[in-house]
Amino acid sequence: MEGVDHLADERNKAEFNVDDMKIIWAGSRHAFDVSNRISRFVATDPVFEKSNRALMTRKELFKNTLKKSVYAWKIIKELRLSDEEGIKLRIFMDQPGFLDLHWGMFVPAIKGQGTEEQQQKWLSLANKMQIIGCYAQTELGHGSNVQGLETTATFDPKTDQFIMHSPTQTSSKWWPGGLGKVSTHAVVYARLITNGKDHGVHGFIVQLRSLDDHSPLPGITIGDIGMKFGNGAYNSMDNGFLMFNQFRIPRDQMLMRLSKVTREGKYIASDVPRQLVYGTMVSVRQTIVSKASDALARAVCIATRYSAVRRQFGSENGGIETQVIDYKTQQNRLFPLLASAYAFRFVGEWLKWLYTDVTQRLEASDFVTLPEAHACTAGLKSMTTSATSDGIEECRKLCGGHGYLWCSGLPELFAVYVPACTYEGDNVVLQLQVARFLMKTVSQLGSGKAPAGTTAYMGRAQHLLQCRSGVQKAEDWLNPSMVLEAFESRALRMAITCAKNLSKFENQEQGFSELLADLVEAAIAHCQLIVVSKFIAKIEGEIEGKGVKKQLKNLCYIYALHLLHKHLGDFLSTNSVTPEQASLASHQLRSLYSQVRPNAVALVDAFDYTDHYLGSVLGRYDGNVYPKLFEEALKDPLNDSVVPDGYHEYIRPLIKQNFPSAKL
Amino acid sequence: MEGVDHLADERNKAEFNVDDMKIIWAGSRHAFDVSNRISRFVATDPVFEKSNRALMTRKELFKNTLKKSVYAWKIIKELRLSDEEGIKLRIFMDQPGFLDLHWGMFVPAIKGQGTEEQQQKWLSLANKMQIIGCYAQTELGHGSNVQGLETTATFDPKTDQFIMHSPTQTSSKWWPGGLGKVSTHAVVYARLITNGKDHGVHGFIVQLRSLDDHSPLPGITIGDIGMKFGNGAYNSMDNGFLMFNQFRIPRDQMLMRLSKVTREGKYIASDVPRQLVYGTMVSVRQTIVSKASDALARAVCIATRYSAVRRQFGSENGGIETQVIDYKTQQNRLFPLLASAYAFRFVGEWLKWLYTDVTQRLEASDFVTLPEAHACTAGLKSMTTSATSDGIEECRKLCGGHGYLWCSGLPELFAVYVPACTYEGDNVVLQLQVARFLMKTVSQLGSGKAPAGTTAYMGRAQHLLQCRSGVQKAEDWLNPSMVLEAFESRALRMAITCAKNLSKFENQEQGFSELLADLVEAAIAHCQLIVVSKFIAKIEGEIEGKGVKKQLKNLCYIYALHLLHKHLGDFLSTNSVTPEQASLASHQLRSLYSQVRPNAVALVDAFDYTDHYLGSVLGRYDGNVYPKLFEEALKDPLNDSVVPDGYHEYIRPLIKQNFPSAKL
Repeated sequence: MEGVDHLADERNKAEFNVDDMKIIWAGSRHAFDVSNRISRFVATDPVFEKSNRALMTRKELFKNTLKKSVYAWKIIKELRLSDEEGIKLRIFMDQPGFLDLHWGMFVPAIKGQGTEEQQQKWLSLANKMQIIGCYAQTELGHGSNVQGLETTATFDPKTDQFIMHSPTQTSSKWWPGGLGKVSTHAVVYARLITNGKDHGVHGFIVQLRSLDDHSPLPGITIGDIGMKFGNGAYNSMDNGFLMFNQFRIPRDQMLMRLSKVTREGKYIASDVPRQLVYGTMVSVRQTIVSKASDALARAVCIATRYSAVRRQFGSENGGIETQVIDYKTQQNRLFPLLASAYAFRFVGEWLKWLYTDVTQRLEASDFVTLPEAHACTAGLKSMTTSATSDGIEECRKLCGGHGYLWCSGLPELFAVYVPACTYEGDNVVLQLQVARFLMKTVSQLGSGKAPAGTTAYMGRAQHLLQCRSGVQKAEDWLNPSMVLEAFESRALRMAITCAKNLSKFENQEQGFSELLADLVEAAIAHCQLIVVSKFIAKIEGEIEGKGVKKQLKNLCYIYALHLLHKHLGDFLSTNSVTPEQASLASHQLRSLYSQVRPNAVALVDAFDYTDHYLGSVLGRYDGNVYPKLFEEALKDPLNDSVVPDGYHEYIRPLIKQNFPSAKL
Repeated sequence: MEGVDHLADERNKAEFNVDDMKIIWAGSRHAFDVSNRISRFVATDPVFEKSNRALMTRKELFKNTLKKSVYAWKIIKELRLSDEEGIKLRIFMDQPGFLDLHWGMFVPAIKGQGTEEQQQKWLSLANKMQIIGCYAQTELGHGSNVQGLETTATFDPKTDQFIMHSPTQTSSKWWPGGLGKVSTHAVVYARLITNGKDHGVHGFIVQLRSLDDHSPLPGITIGDIGMKFGNGAYNSMDNGFLMFNQFRIPRDQMLMRLSKVTREGKYIASDVPRQLVYGTMVSVRQTIVSKASDALARAVCIATRYSAVRRQFGSENGGIETQVIDYKTQQNRLFPLLASAYAFRFVGEWLKWLYTDVTQRLEASDFVTLPEAHACTAGLKSMTTSATSDGIEECRKLCGGHGYLWCSGLPELFAVYVPACTYEGDNVVLQLQVARFLMKTVSQLGSGKAPAGTTAYMGRAQHLLQCRSGVQKAEDWLNPSMVLEAFESRALRMAITCAKNLSKFENQEQGFSELLADLVEAAIAHCQLIVVSKFIAKIEGEIEGKGVKKQLKNLCYIYALHLLHKHLGDFLSTNSVTPEQASLASHQLRSLYSQVRPNAVALVDAFDYTDHYLGSVLGRYDGNVYPKLFEEALKDPLNDSVVPDGYHEYIRPLIKQNFPSAKL
């Protein structure tokens, strides 16, 4: 049956042009071309094979990552791939490794925080990978609270050096990817101490290992932190620990763009605005949001295709059974996730624009929009990564028993994805930052300072506090302004209720800490509004392609109305909608599910994922699931022999009741 | 610092007697004694070591399971452990293996469905483990829909045999634990065909492997289905596939208690009531609920202890930071899970009583309560396993970055637990069974037939449809009748709304299928009411021990009020509470969190888990987390050498820009 498309019927049902949708999903024809070309290149090169990953030992997996990474870099050089193409190559290689940290954290840290001189020196080495760098911030005892880091960098004026030191066990660097076994260098964050004064946490470029034989330099203790969640997954990465024992580096290895230490040990802040750091954060988090849509889309693609292949119940007389995708319970769980993948894609696209905007403003020393942009990216990072983690596991459950097999691709996707909820800001801590910003915005309402950007709606507080939703029939829930108003009114009213409750406390900080849980909910309501509004903006813009706009509209309203149902308590308790209007929304939602149903497989085809990248027997493009499950099973080493290793030592003594012969 | 209790302060804070609580948790002094003794026995025997599990290859892990299982059985025999003790030994061994299926499924299936003669023959072998059995029901193409199984057992009157056959690839048995490599026998479910007539699915005892050399018998193809979710976890188990090619078994190996086939091939149903099968289901699902409380308690124990050890933020001047357990966001996520663990414990206890009650009634041929008992256990299985899976992952996130390390114990606990959402009935499919039962109960209201058991509240429909919650102040939410009424009114009103919406459809089945999602929500509301009501019943009964009752009351109301908040949309849209009353509930909830806070560590100590069973560096009894994280890290094979394997082949050629020397 090789070559047969078991999903052809599904694909023929689609009411839109899937090629046009691929362009929309990719963002542009150019972006589609690059992804399409590079993903197929990776898929056909045997070095990038990954289906064997679950059976490798830790050492084999690590070594395999070294091989893939070096090979990838060789290809990038030899084929003279552009930066964009190189990034795509690393994405489609789909195996966490030191390249991610070198390019994603080490190089940007030097670019962002190094002086021009430092950039010239270090980037020329790093760009050719003559040195391999990582990003050593987190410590055993400190993650979220960066200001609490314990590692010290004490200036020694006698030798013009910094003495890097780990004063306690909890001050050991712990977690940095690429640190454990590979990196030759690191950007290390440590408390700068000069003339006995602690100037807080700063970044330093530190060489860790000899460039001759790779042994750690004297004064440095370094290693791998051990196994992590899942099989394969992040175990390919050498997340590491690092301790300094009075390790010395030259003064000019402190990253000195934002502040510096003179030869005499004087600490001087430069005139480069510190806000630039936030600009980098906006950039990193924008990438995380776009990766969230990618990860969720992978899971949804697998679950959707398999739900169309899998049949269960519905036949009384031994005839063909019902495709599980036809059950409303399946649609009610799957389609909102499909809609979320698209929603996160478009909000990620908008964040790219926001980053450009922020960068241009920063260059013109305009910092006005920065707090709003910072809060918005923090909130969206938190909201989209949490939803994606939960969504991947939900997709796994939607695949029933077979979703539990490693070869379904979903267990590893989950294991490799969930750290996104923790790194670059714990998701709850981030929502509290958003909440603080919202409370500040609320407190300034009426001060004449109009809230801007994603908080602009708060400027219409008077209206939003009084308005009653005009929804009278189910179709009204397809009216963008009615949907937006419901989300705006919910978000605003929750924020204002929090502010009111806070004002009852004499001590604001104590009030904040008492009301943390409510504040997080208000922040999430604000973030969901952003995603809904950007999705609506997208479908109200120009969209090319046969039938494409109609599909996106359906997904947009599924996204919004499903959130409304999920957080109904918010909407009802703030009187943003009535129970009757909520019931109309559920009715509309069911109708939307029916409209998406015939398009579901084509909507995930639009992601243009290769079978290699998906890495899932259940999500195969051709839907030929069952024979391939067998093929995968037969590869397990337990099937090397019919009678298993251990029979003579254990099974036989047991059933022959001959324990003395057992190897116990 | 060995021997120091880093959590001593926390333990001193407790306002109740933890030893008394241990008895409550265990269910009785006797149950506590057995668990306490056996868990410590297992913890100190080196054969049961499990901290090395993540680093074993599949074959090593499988062989290690064989060893542990046979050793456990040897101990059970030699020490003449009681059934209760033997079960505990298997639980605390904490590694999925063939013993689970042999004792948990194979033996009970023969007991439940075999004739006395069959029981005598097969159980005498099985009880001594002269044969090893598994339970082969699920097929590659069929899980939930048991009636859709394809394997056939065709009676051949010439030879007085059944011919077992797998007509298609999808008819292969797929998933049965212990089948892949170990079992000598299986109870196989297949369509019984005699005289050309299909009598539906029946059970057969089938020998799979030679008792001499363990090779599969001719006509049988058998093997392992490959890697599953996670590292360690269920990969210790040989879940298998099985295909028959015209394999013959004697007629008397059909399990014939409920129906039989005569020598002539005549199919005869016996006079033993088929309802007995449901009795077994009640028993199995009761066990699943009690295991849910156990798994959730393990996760909560780890997260609670670590939240008391971990400090982050809250210090401005380098002083000691705040314990993360003191943050309301942490409490708001953790304490409801702690409360859920206790809630599931008590509802599990009640289910044990229910099972006894059902069994006694069945023996007296009283089948009246069976549908209600069946729906109730189906719903509770679904509700508690879903909440537990989500809860374990939430506990992992509550441990921040370090929760992602394998040695936190949480990744493996999650991976090993999640199949509970799928096996013994997919959780969504089960809730639909509950919903069907509820719709039937609603339709019979006013017919004079009073709803009984867990649906008794529906008999007060008139009152519950009209009543308005009397809650006026936060403390009213500590009034059991007010809490119960809110949950009853919500559940009833949701069920009745569903029934009304169903009645709008001409075709009931079509309506049911259209409203599936709403029906599931109504079923969940009903199940949550059951758990809340059983917890309330518990705290209203006699409870011994200093301060114990007060703690359980706090947990009970945390459980209820947190559910109220989480499902606020249900409560508000059914007018079961007002927004103001909901806000009072949130207020009361925060106050309860403060009351639980000083008792939190003692409340998880009451589970009496050994460090061996917890298997978590973060959840260690002594709280000595950080040095032990280092110890674990150093065990990773990547740390065997300072310069990693792969340096010369990959890292050196990269940084020396000498690709030709790389092994690519």
